[in-house]
Amino acid sequence: MNKFVYDLPCFNSGGETKHMRISYALLLLLVLSGSVYGFTFSVVMTLPHSPIIPKDNPQTPAKIELGKQLFFDPRLSVDKSLSCNSCHNLAAGGDDDGMAKHLEQRTIRRSAPSLYNVAFQSVNFWDARAHSLEQAITEHLLDKNIMALQSENKLIQRLQSIKGYEVYYQAAFKHAKMNVQTTSKALASFIRTLVTPNSQFDQYLNGDKQAISANAKRGYKIFNDYGCMSCHFGVYFAGPAPGPAYQMGDGFYELFPNYLGSDYDKKYDLTSDDGRVQVTGDAADRYLWRVPGLRNITMTAPYFHNGSVNDLNEAIRIMGKVQLGLNLNDNDVRDIRAFLESLTGEYPEIKLPRLPDTHGLSLQVK
Amino acid sequence: MNKFVYDLPCFNSGGETKHMRISYALLLLLVLSGSVYGFTFSVVMTLPHSPIIPKDNPQTPAKIELGKQLFFDPRLSVDKSLSCNSCHNLAAGGDDDGMAKHLEQRTIRRSAPSLYNVAFQSVNFWDARAHSLEQAITEHLLDKNIMALQSENKLIQRLQSIKGYEVYYQAAFKHAKMNVQTTSKALASFIRTLVTPNSQFDQYLNGDKQAISANAKRGYKIFNDYGCMSCHFGVYFAGPAPGPAYQMGDGFYELFPNYLGSDYDKKYDLTSDDGRVQVTGDAADRYLWRVPGLRNITMTAPYFHNGSVNDLNEAIRIMGKVQLGLNLNDNDVRDIRAFLESLTGEYPEIKLPRLPDTHGLSLQVK
Repeated sequence: MNKFVYDLPCFNSGGETKHMRISYALLLLLVLSGSVYGFTFSVVMTLPHSPIIPKDNPQTPAKIELGKQLFFDPRLSVDKSLSCNSCHNLAAGGDDDGMAKHLEQRTIRRSAPSLYNVAFQSVNFWDARAHSLEQAITEHLLDKNIMALQSENKLIQRLQSIKGYEVYYQAAFKHAKMNVQTTSKALASFIRTLVTPNSQFDQYLNGDKQAISANAKRGYKIFNDYGCMSCHFGVYFAGPAPGPAYQMGDGFYELFPNYLGSDYDKKYDLTSDDGRVQVTGDAADRYLWRVPGLRNITMTAPYFHNGSVNDLNEAIRIMGKVQLGLNLNDNDVRDIRAFLESLTGEYPEIKLPRLPDTHGLSLQVK
Repeated sequence: MNKFVYDLPCFNSGGETKHMRISYALLLLLVLSGSVYGFTFSVVMTLPHSPIIPKDNPQTPAKIELGKQLFFDPRLSVDKSLSCNSCHNLAAGGDDDGMAKHLEQRTIRRSAPSLYNVAFQSVNFWDARAHSLEQAITEHLLDKNIMALQSENKLIQRLQSIKGYEVYYQAAFKHAKMNVQTTSKALASFIRTLVTPNSQFDQYLNGDKQAISANAKRGYKIFNDYGCMSCHFGVYFAGPAPGPAYQMGDGFYELFPNYLGSDYDKKYDLTSDDGRVQVTGDAADRYLWRVPGLRNITMTAPYFHNGSVNDLNEAIRIMGKVQLGLNLNDNDVRDIRAFLESLTGEYPEIKLPRLPDTHGLSLQVK
């Protein structure tokens, strides 16, 4: 995790000062790009068709195919009840509409975020405790409340008991073994293909001025003017994406709620989970969260780390109040929403994989 | 349900008499086809590329697409936790490897069968209580232990709350409404596309004598000679498929266990569920079951109505013993298995659908 952070005094439109943690590398990027304007950033870019690929896990067709099989395979969960796709449903927004929080045999306290475009995040989990997609996947596989395989040995046993996988691991990794590293790498390779480019907003940025509505244009403007874009900028509107100036593992955080004390805190239980402090133990990280991306956001209700807000319009009002101290009026909400709607991109076509089989044996889980 | 059944004295290879219920229509078919030989049927046919389509539910691309969306949509279950695909996983054998029986919030006592080629069955459920695929689907949607929507009103409310569905129902059904009938029809239309033709055995039947191994050939021969094919015949090896001579809704049943009292009864709990008598209340239907199909059987462990047998080889031994009174030797098991393995067909390519969305709203389930 990048420790080189800079406390940038950052003014919201109400003129009050708050502090924002920003990496030196990002600051350099911002200054060099000349895009700092009135302490509100307007670093907005179209979504690339593919994210930065880590050097130690290059994309290959064999790895992507294996990753897709693993992604759709419920046998990766200890009781065969959940696949990755159960909570990150690629037929929908890449999330679960709040389902996982109600699972009986598991305690999942935070909302499952979309995996579409997640490769444009530099850190993973709401509290940014994973520095790479591979690391986040490994944690999912072993976590007793998710796939619950609990140890690498058990994962390896499970995979070896599905005889059909062997040939796919060999194709993807040659001499490397069937283990938690190769499994996480294959899954990460598949997840890095989940990109939704060419949204109306991207078309607009590319010069088609008619690609978004007048409401969306005003929404974009006030999104910038009011200060939303202080945090929600970059290709994924989640702060800086990994790239030359900003490394994978460099976190980009924001206080939420920034203004404590509104009625929303209680109504939506915004404060009982205090975020990143639980990872670092550093009191300065209390209520600090990774900034979530905004692309395809109309597809990913419910909202916030606890999935407590069902309606995007309400989520916009809450963000105005608890982050910026603003009471957004109905026109503001309508127009910001129109802008957000323009961020829905084109979903990739996904052919359902054929899962490797066990040749006339049931996979024993007890 | 067809009540015109004929008690056919049917001899197994041990020479003992048992009774088999068979419809007049089927008997006519068998006699006309001249394929009754020594009271062991050898009516074997290649799997067609599509099943008989009911006149009141013709296949259309719009209906199939809607059915596919519904099939993969967990919002069809009351708590958003299960889609049809959860228990009938089309990426695998079209079943669930025994998973559903372990679900915490549901009581599912019988094994989820594969939906691949299910349209070649004339009745549905292990106890044949549904006379059509549409009827079986309706029961799944409302059953408190499956999708659990419990009433048609709740199903309609649920569907109407997913705004994105409206346009797809209109495309599929024009003036017909979004209700349990149209929903079941769309799902049935999709399920009727789940056909796996062109297995090695089909190629063999079509004249390619090298398409199956010598073991499989011997397995096929003893499968016939020993009497397995008395029940497991037809395109799906599940008895007669719906067609000109045999109507949808005509059931084809067999006693299981046919020979009570073997050690297997207790070991695999084969008798505590007494099958079709629970539907009809007729004592003559005790331990009567719909004959299950055999295609792709290496992909659909565990076996039997209660999913109690994990290994296909053991399932073959059990069938020899409790159905035919035979102790199959290892060579028999190996060869029958080789024949069964040759029944695995070509799975259709399935493009993951995009589920209709709720436009920035979470679907409320409480």
